[in-house]
Amino acid sequence: MKIVVTGAAGFLGKRLIRALLERGSMTDSAGERRPIEHIAAFDVVPLEGIDDARVQVSTGDLADPAHLERLVDAGTHSVFHLAAVVSGQAEQDFDLGMRVNFDATRALLERLRALGQRAKFVMTSSVAVFGGALPACVDDSQVWAPQSSYGTEKALADLLLADYSRRGFVDGRSLRMPTIVVRPGKPNRAASSFASGIIREPLNGEPAVCPVDPRTVLWLMSPLRAIDNLIHGHELPAAQLSAGRVINMPGLSITVADMVASLRRIAGDEVAARIAFTPDPAIERIVNSWPGNFSARYARSLGFVHDDGFDSVIRAFIADASTVAA
Amino acid sequence: MKIVVTGAAGFLGKRLIRALLERGSMTDSAGERRPIEHIAAFDVVPLEGIDDARVQVSTGDLADPAHLERLVDAGTHSVFHLAAVVSGQAEQDFDLGMRVNFDATRALLERLRALGQRAKFVMTSSVAVFGGALPACVDDSQVWAPQSSYGTEKALADLLLADYSRRGFVDGRSLRMPTIVVRPGKPNRAASSFASGIIREPLNGEPAVCPVDPRTVLWLMSPLRAIDNLIHGHELPAAQLSAGRVINMPGLSITVADMVASLRRIAGDEVAARIAFTPDPAIERIVNSWPGNFSARYARSLGFVHDDGFDSVIRAFIADASTVAA
Repeated sequence: MKIVVTGAAGFLGKRLIRALLERGSMTDSAGERRPIEHIAAFDVVPLEGIDDARVQVSTGDLADPAHLERLVDAGTHSVFHLAAVVSGQAEQDFDLGMRVNFDATRALLERLRALGQRAKFVMTSSVAVFGGALPACVDDSQVWAPQSSYGTEKALADLLLADYSRRGFVDGRSLRMPTIVVRPGKPNRAASSFASGIIREPLNGEPAVCPVDPRTVLWLMSPLRAIDNLIHGHELPAAQLSAGRVINMPGLSITVADMVASLRRIAGDEVAARIAFTPDPAIERIVNSWPGNFSARYARSLGFVHDDGFDSVIRAFIADASTVAA
Repeated sequence: MKIVVTGAAGFLGKRLIRALLERGSMTDSAGERRPIEHIAAFDVVPLEGIDDARVQVSTGDLADPAHLERLVDAGTHSVFHLAAVVSGQAEQDFDLGMRVNFDATRALLERLRALGQRAKFVMTSSVAVFGGALPACVDDSQVWAPQSSYGTEKALADLLLADYSRRGFVDGRSLRMPTIVVRPGKPNRAASSFASGIIREPLNGEPAVCPVDPRTVLWLMSPLRAIDNLIHGHELPAAQLSAGRVINMPGLSITVADMVASLRRIAGDEVAARIAFTPDPAIERIVNSWPGNFSARYARSLGFVHDDGFDSVIRAFIADASTVAA
């Protein structure tokens, strides 16, 4: 089978491709287990660091129909669509965010519809679709009320994926991801970038700025669990998706203060002292509009997993950093 | 001020234009009351039957940028966007529904954004955005889960309107309308068409088919209250819209059996006997996915109105039919 991965050069994309190569086979939409013969790894920058004959790297513009036709073809059984403009950037550049986060997703869905093979389409959505007056623990029946263009674009894509699946154009699954922590590499323009930065930078001997109040409650998932869930979300039979194709993932609800306490426990006072708390109202406004806890009842019933505690998340990051290039 | 009305030749469009002409003035987004100098009445078929120098009739394609530029110009203070492909047709022709119900709405919002005047933008949405497992009475916090492409397209437009408003591109208000009953004229391809047909046709001496079970609960609003609410929705100051721009309207929750009983009370047994109950599974599937009752708490707090009972809805239809061309 051929699997397309967009956002392949990102830290999740790269880890997903490694996990797929290691598994060696996946289940198609007819429920048949097939060997993975090709992985088309697409991103705006070329994927590097994976040397496997099954992986074809390409770059380009997803909204360009000619490129899309080459990338997604009649042999494509599955697409993992991870490519996105992050929240801070989508807020700054509305047109770019709409084009990448919505129009490109629509173009991908249209391409799969035209091919007529009901391919599996696994996408990452975001808790940024929620906002406004929210209960302490958000249930699966909670209305979407995005307070950012990123959240709006993810909600638009979710609706489209659900209708394309209902009509049988694709076999879609959208996973509403918590904030993924600890991301490796450099800070990015996501409003949530600090959530990884306050762990990663101090561990690397560098200073970090926390732009939100330590009492801020975050909803987190580690990269390891994210990959587990992406693969699980792909493998679930369509018949089990009784409550729809858009699934709020389980996660870890934790305050920033408890994250720092965890870092202090594992790495010591000197490391934790590298975090400076300097409020940034623009980031606080976006981050505080995101819920800090979810019931994720539907996802749990489907067997999606979450991290047991933040200490193990930090330990996994340290272990990962020592074995994987960022 | 100039007001653009799309879907102007429809029964709501026509009644809205008459109501606007009668009022003579409306409030712009700065809160200033202005005389209505121009109403640009757009539809795919020309508006007929309104003879007033303030009304300019045009036809064309809303998704065509050249047409849109002529229709919506720097003098446009407000747009009432009522044009839509109805639910049954949008389900049959996915591309047409997306183009009219979503792409044309987006093009309109983009045009207003480009003009940079934060024009008022009042749109009709639909209870078809809801579906799946629902409580007996749907609250404003209920998640959207459309079970039709029409519902999906209306939810997409709602999300866009909300973000364009949040960013200050437009001053938008989307009114989630109940099924409008009694519509004058002929049956259309809306799945809800029968809800008017079972009252209208018997009163006109014609047979009617009811494709759903008499126990089906519908959520209704009369054309009179719909016009009241469209104008109220336009006039509300933006500062009052504390819980967002997408508003579930209040309505009348009633079973089909009670609608028929009301018709019998007002028009007699002979008239009510003109209704034949012949189930249509395709229509039942769509109609049964729509909730039959809403709290509409937010809308009520904002002063939106609903019908007091179905007898008065029928009486208003009879009075309207004798004074207004369909």
